[in-house]
Amino acid sequence: MQGLMMDMPLLISTILQQAARHFGDVEIVSRRVEGDIHRTDYRGLETRARRLADALSKAGVADGDRVATLAWNGYRHMELYYAAGGMGGVIHTINPRLHPDQIAWIVNHAEDKFLAFDITFLPIIEAIAARCPNVKGWIAMIDPDRQPSSDKIPGLINYEALLDGGSADYRWPTLDENSAVGLCYTSGTTGNPKGALYSHRSSVIHAYAAALPDAMGASSRDVILPVVPMFHVNAWGLPYVAPMVGAKLVFPGQHLDGQSIYELFEQEGVTYSAGVPTVWLGLLQYMRSKSLRFSTLKRTVIGGSACPPAMIRSFRDDYGVEVIHAWGMTELSPLGTLAKLQARHQGLPDEAQQKVLEKQGHVIFGIDMKIVDDQNQELPWDGSSFGNLLVRGPWVVREYFKSEGGNPLVDDEEGHGWFPTGDVATIDSDGYMQITDRSKDVIKSGGEWISSIDLENLALAHPAVANAAVIGIAHPKWDERPLLIVVKKPDAKVDRKDLIEFYDGKVAKWWIPDDVQFVDEIPLGATGKILKTRLRELFADYRLPDAA
Amino acid sequence: MQGLMMDMPLLISTILQQAARHFGDVEIVSRRVEGDIHRTDYRGLETRARRLADALSKAGVADGDRVATLAWNGYRHMELYYAAGGMGGVIHTINPRLHPDQIAWIVNHAEDKFLAFDITFLPIIEAIAARCPNVKGWIAMIDPDRQPSSDKIPGLINYEALLDGGSADYRWPTLDENSAVGLCYTSGTTGNPKGALYSHRSSVIHAYAAALPDAMGASSRDVILPVVPMFHVNAWGLPYVAPMVGAKLVFPGQHLDGQSIYELFEQEGVTYSAGVPTVWLGLLQYMRSKSLRFSTLKRTVIGGSACPPAMIRSFRDDYGVEVIHAWGMTELSPLGTLAKLQARHQGLPDEAQQKVLEKQGHVIFGIDMKIVDDQNQELPWDGSSFGNLLVRGPWVVREYFKSEGGNPLVDDEEGHGWFPTGDVATIDSDGYMQITDRSKDVIKSGGEWISSIDLENLALAHPAVANAAVIGIAHPKWDERPLLIVVKKPDAKVDRKDLIEFYDGKVAKWWIPDDVQFVDEIPLGATGKILKTRLRELFADYRLPDAA
Repeated sequence: MQGLMMDMPLLISTILQQAARHFGDVEIVSRRVEGDIHRTDYRGLETRARRLADALSKAGVADGDRVATLAWNGYRHMELYYAAGGMGGVIHTINPRLHPDQIAWIVNHAEDKFLAFDITFLPIIEAIAARCPNVKGWIAMIDPDRQPSSDKIPGLINYEALLDGGSADYRWPTLDENSAVGLCYTSGTTGNPKGALYSHRSSVIHAYAAALPDAMGASSRDVILPVVPMFHVNAWGLPYVAPMVGAKLVFPGQHLDGQSIYELFEQEGVTYSAGVPTVWLGLLQYMRSKSLRFSTLKRTVIGGSACPPAMIRSFRDDYGVEVIHAWGMTELSPLGTLAKLQARHQGLPDEAQQKVLEKQGHVIFGIDMKIVDDQNQELPWDGSSFGNLLVRGPWVVREYFKSEGGNPLVDDEEGHGWFPTGDVATIDSDGYMQITDRSKDVIKSGGEWISSIDLENLALAHPAVANAAVIGIAHPKWDERPLLIVVKKPDAKVDRKDLIEFYDGKVAKWWIPDDVQFVDEIPLGATGKILKTRLRELFADYRLPDAA
Repeated sequence: MQGLMMDMPLLISTILQQAARHFGDVEIVSRRVEGDIHRTDYRGLETRARRLADALSKAGVADGDRVATLAWNGYRHMELYYAAGGMGGVIHTINPRLHPDQIAWIVNHAEDKFLAFDITFLPIIEAIAARCPNVKGWIAMIDPDRQPSSDKIPGLINYEALLDGGSADYRWPTLDENSAVGLCYTSGTTGNPKGALYSHRSSVIHAYAAALPDAMGASSRDVILPVVPMFHVNAWGLPYVAPMVGAKLVFPGQHLDGQSIYELFEQEGVTYSAGVPTVWLGLLQYMRSKSLRFSTLKRTVIGGSACPPAMIRSFRDDYGVEVIHAWGMTELSPLGTLAKLQARHQGLPDEAQQKVLEKQGHVIFGIDMKIVDDQNQELPWDGSSFGNLLVRGPWVVREYFKSEGGNPLVDDEEGHGWFPTGDVATIDSDGYMQITDRSKDVIKSGGEWISSIDLENLALAHPAVANAAVIGIAHPKWDERPLLIVVKKPDAKVDRKDLIEFYDGKVAKWWIPDDVQFVDEIPLGATGKILKTRLRELFADYRLPDAA
């Protein structure tokens, strides 16, 4: 027997429509590539998104067609999310930090029909336009008087001119909620990039879950500045969460240095932010150097890669800001777990609470997870057993775009498919997950696993260490042994022996790295994560001292 | 083009399964009809719910079959919610305060297959059993050693004995998320009671929305005591919200007097509660008389009927408790709007903030609303225009069970159906709705509308008034004029003139009641609301002074 409730699909157009109707005058502030600060509100944004949808429709974008973006966080990018997605198309966000060859490959694989870009990325477009014959138009997201021209780009369109041709009488269609709405390729350290194809349903349910008090805890009292890029898994869902809850949005544009971010925080009364650890490193360094304080910032979500415990402490103890440590991935829309204290932790001493907050956290309702060994047997939730992390939920991919890579899922005994995350983790008896490594980065020494991330975090706690990475080096007896690679802080004095001894008493003796190498820079990927593949190449000829 | 995310239906069984898996040791505490305090946890409750589902299945409950309850808030009632709903049946909660004739009518209309009851209600069951031939078994929710016997009840079963026959190997089926899961009849002041038939989908989406920071704001740090009965629109969704977010639950059973509730609050560390104004009146009176304080209570949702502004103030100023004023109805699962401050209100003076919190509040994402005049034309959101309130959303009924009453919806120009709530309201420019009356209670005087609720709230602010109601009395010139009906506080001295003058300067002159009548008691309906129909009967022969 069916229930008798209204049959209303979960659509992203509903999010923006409701925001326009119920939070119409709540501001959206953007630092633009034009150099100024732009202000609109949800009512204004919804009207422009409708006009843009109409214009795209007239330009030939049909159901399921991909509209790509190479863009910073800004109101036009947000308009594109809702216009392309709301009309029945697919917003395909591309990471501009990828190599132009990769970008061209992705544009062609996705068969993007249009590509909108901030003019910062004009050189990329010039490099790829000729190689992307399916793209009918390249849309420069800039005021018409600043419109660039380029003989290398056939079909160069101005965003505002395009939008001007759209009618505000356009009405959002009522779509099947399982229709595709967003496409995001994983950075793919091995093999070709693979696309996660989000649906309206998955995006709306993810936004509901992401806004919950134990997740982002987003509300109409918040002013949210997503430092995490909109080209990076939908800025962790914030372009959907903020209008859903009626929060003011502040988009930082291209300048993500400490000073630029800090100024926006203070000028716009930002209460809430989200980003990867490296961005916060820059911000905290800037603030320390100028002895600055936050006036309004209360919380920040940190994810993308593990947040160093020292950063969590510094935010709290030095700046009074709550860090919500989060874990997710492109294939999870992206949120999986977040670390917030529960009732059970409230009486614990500070140090014990901090330990909880350092973990990647607890699932939000919708996501289930488990850890398994190499034989796919589930491992206990004891906080120490670690195994491959698998997840399932309504906002987890079941396969990649165009079935790239085949069926990624691993079935359990009841026939339910689980997505293998490629992460290695522990889960404690309270359900808190902690990433101990990537499956491919874990160091397998004498039949046991050593977490490279644990060793990196410990090194980062040393006062002389600016950045650190640990990789496994082949060893004749132990199979692999850990090598610590360190970038020193400017003028800091530290040597191999200091760092090796720094591990004493902090980890099991057999976990301590066999050697330390000092470098000027650790290679980072397009999403700010340490590129261990590149490190392994750089140290391909390196031999450990006792294995020389 | 379809998205490629996991195809996982939104099911209430997933809520309990996830709670068992991720919040397994979080407590569920119940004050039982046996007289003791019972403790279990989500893991224990999920196991028993599965055994009960198996037992009900073996007893012949099939897909869509209704299992009714006449029960207080307690763990067994919660088990029934999840067992009957999770297995593919429908949990049909009945208000035991209805007249046995109405209960029998509802049981027969719903074609309930089983009915589970707390033994408090044995007399009701004895009165109706013979009249409800479809009911295959009457399940007494009591320990086996206290099982009653009655020759008036054929098929009397013990709950624990039934459950003992179920296997813990039972697995929750994967249902269509649009399947019916819950049935709740409206009290229906006119015509027959009508059933709202909730689906898994509507219940899960409602729970997500209800837990948001701008709604109930429920989290794993909360200890939730629902005073609002589980027979009253699913205790406003809390039996789904609490396990979804991992909150401890405290069920008060049958004793809802001030002392009993207060003791549970203190013993179990309750942080969060929810109930109708009349319950809180009793609690606050008890606390005042004993000069008591709350040790842990932080927030309470008050709805069901308008919360007197004085109560909101008293909770905050005298007890440090945040009141979240809410509005909803059976047909809305029930939540529609809640009053929380937004960023825009944070700099306002205390008095202005209080005015916001006195309104029924702002929609949560999922619900849209509008106010219309008698010609169905939308009225402006200016905070003063008032009209009939209409709503739509994925947790709003589209029709009643068995199509009772026909199509209740009113279509707009785009063909979208809206549910007419029967309430009269204003909406201000920030989207805050305020109920000014019920459509049938609004007093139509000289072509204009007077809100009976506004007049009642003002009267309740008078120190000598214990309770107040305002009804329209026929008037030869003005069509209707307001009559104030008052219950005095014990030993309070107040007369007609005092109360009439009390309105001076607080409302427009033509709103002031023409007369005051003092009574010992104001008749309340089964859900604690003032029974205006009964009042109108009682004052059928009354004539206003100047219309005599």
